[in-house]
Amino acid sequence: MKRHILQLAVLLMTGTAMAQEAIFEKRDTGSPVKNDDGTVTLRLKAPEAQKVTVVGDCIEKMHAEMKNTDGTWTYTTPQLAPELYNYRFYVDGVEALDPANLERSRDVRSFMSTFIISREKGDQGYLYANHDIPHGDVQQVWYDSPSLGIQRRMSIYTPAGYDKGKKYPVLYLLHGAGGDEEAWLTLGRTQQILDNLIALGKAVPMIVVMPNGNATDDASPLMTGREHKNHPATTYQEGFGDIINYVQKHYKVKRGAANTALAGLSMGGFHTFSISLLRPGQFGYLGLFSAAVRMDRRSQKPIDVQLEESAEVSAQIEAVFRAKPSLYWIAIGKDDFLYQQNAGLRRYLDKKGYAYEYHESEGGHTWRNWRVYLSIFAQRLFK
Amino acid sequence: MKRHILQLAVLLMTGTAMAQEAIFEKRDTGSPVKNDDGTVTLRLKAPEAQKVTVVGDCIEKMHAEMKNTDGTWTYTTPQLAPELYNYRFYVDGVEALDPANLERSRDVRSFMSTFIISREKGDQGYLYANHDIPHGDVQQVWYDSPSLGIQRRMSIYTPAGYDKGKKYPVLYLLHGAGGDEEAWLTLGRTQQILDNLIALGKAVPMIVVMPNGNATDDASPLMTGREHKNHPATTYQEGFGDIINYVQKHYKVKRGAANTALAGLSMGGFHTFSISLLRPGQFGYLGLFSAAVRMDRRSQKPIDVQLEESAEVSAQIEAVFRAKPSLYWIAIGKDDFLYQQNAGLRRYLDKKGYAYEYHESEGGHTWRNWRVYLSIFAQRLFK
Repeated sequence: MKRHILQLAVLLMTGTAMAQEAIFEKRDTGSPVKNDDGTVTLRLKAPEAQKVTVVGDCIEKMHAEMKNTDGTWTYTTPQLAPELYNYRFYVDGVEALDPANLERSRDVRSFMSTFIISREKGDQGYLYANHDIPHGDVQQVWYDSPSLGIQRRMSIYTPAGYDKGKKYPVLYLLHGAGGDEEAWLTLGRTQQILDNLIALGKAVPMIVVMPNGNATDDASPLMTGREHKNHPATTYQEGFGDIINYVQKHYKVKRGAANTALAGLSMGGFHTFSISLLRPGQFGYLGLFSAAVRMDRRSQKPIDVQLEESAEVSAQIEAVFRAKPSLYWIAIGKDDFLYQQNAGLRRYLDKKGYAYEYHESEGGHTWRNWRVYLSIFAQRLFK
Repeated sequence: MKRHILQLAVLLMTGTAMAQEAIFEKRDTGSPVKNDDGTVTLRLKAPEAQKVTVVGDCIEKMHAEMKNTDGTWTYTTPQLAPELYNYRFYVDGVEALDPANLERSRDVRSFMSTFIISREKGDQGYLYANHDIPHGDVQQVWYDSPSLGIQRRMSIYTPAGYDKGKKYPVLYLLHGAGGDEEAWLTLGRTQQILDNLIALGKAVPMIVVMPNGNATDDASPLMTGREHKNHPATTYQEGFGDIINYVQKHYKVKRGAANTALAGLSMGGFHTFSISLLRPGQFGYLGLFSAAVRMDRRSQKPIDVQLEESAEVSAQIEAVFRAKPSLYWIAIGKDDFLYQQNAGLRRYLDKKGYAYEYHESEGGHTWRNWRVYLSIFAQRLFK
């Protein structure tokens, strides 16, 4: 039978493709091309276009016009460090992803073409790619949320060897505004980061739980998930016990603060902060990545002053630190628009003498930073 | 704490969005719009474009020029029956998905915007959407394939209630050329079809296993999966036992032909055909959806003549039917480029007096047909 397979492949390439499904379209415009000098050339065939620009975090100053040679538009990036990069074309003003590049990610309502630069084992790009190492699995499960009154979808990573019966510590990992239960898997590269860090011996095997933080939605829009118009009786934070209950019931989970971590980015950092206040002592590890910590939006007062003025919240924060978490980790980029809020939170914690660690990076409110923060934070957990 | 969440939402919408992540981009160009008369209006803002066309299975004759009014290009479809539809714009010749529509699917190297039309419970569009019913879960697992010499990824659907301890029958469901372990979940809407058919009482709860049928690949390209250049020692079909072994070891599976089905589309139909020959009597239900059945590509002889001339294959086919499968189901569209091959296979089966069922639909080699075929086939299984 073996030879029939090769014959089949030839057949499929020569079928009456255009009259049938897009499945047989062949494309090869050679983009992106990783050059030997560390630059990357992006290329788009668009002979009828008047103007093509490219935006993305691999583009010098984030934005450039592409150069037209006989209808093929090109742009070559600066030398790029190991990382995961994104870009998108604008053809006569309308966005177009790179048709030659299958690697794409969705960020809320926005799609970008992506590529990874990695030069050696263990570098930042290496952590985001798929290697010949033991792999964990991902489950996308539906759980009942009695407090929100709907069924909801979440993603759960279990490490390689999970099926051997051992129990594992758990990291609850929360997305930002507009994200969903797929964000940490796709843009966040959580599976690759954990698989690689565990295989490198840099992180301990753990379960990672990635819920949907939008209390009125049931699932990602790509599931044709729906927004439930009836306002739930409780907040996502107050209903977080539904998620913990499901995980403890269905997964082989080590209990106790020493085995339980909670972290989130942006809105998920705010969720992390407020869930920790509702459950002091439950999480031995807390991570606030570019957290949207905020008390009263109308107030002109800095966040530390607002926190001090609220006896209720101050008492809750005290309870969190009285339980002596092993790690309270705050990370933010120098250019993040939430920088000042986080500085205010730190002033408050400093004044109270609460122990936390602070990681300040370059850049702003970006997935590039959040992937790096996860890579660092995961190495600190459960040790 | 409750009020802080609403304040946060406002904050995030008014942040310095453009200097930060794409996460806060707001878009609303109102596309697609489902009109009361059963048509759908597609709309794209492109004031600088010279020409915008739209292609897709909801477009009259598959292809149309859009109409420009003050820089917004529109097209209104004919009245559409309940279905899942796809479309894509071409802006001055370059493809662009609908930036206002989050629903997108990848078909091998090709992305399309999609939408679902459903008018009543149980119609074809209803089967593809997400409803308030018990949901199954999806696992994306890595399994060892000793016969192919690599680790490989596959997707597995478990029905609602799976965690209660019962055993379930299994459908192995194979994709076509260029597809991967995500194809039946995304384009195929397998989870939605099974969830809905089971909730409607039209299909029995079952496990659905969706492997990757490309023997040299380890995973979907969106995983940054890799193509392994070393040619495996065996074919995918010969190594299929690795998949069955993993499923039987890790899942609560009913054994025996009465509880085991195998089906596939296009190349996956060929895989179904040839795996059945290697494992006669193992699958009580076989489904060939637009199957690429072919013996010798260089031969000018019809497939039935070729099958008759091969004593080895004839004997294998005889063994398959001697085991009396409960259902041998062949489905194809009238316009499918593989129609004649399937007619040849049917002539052979008719001549031998082997019992099979035949379903002929409109249309060609399309996911629209394969979703419908799965909807029909799944209702016939394990009863």
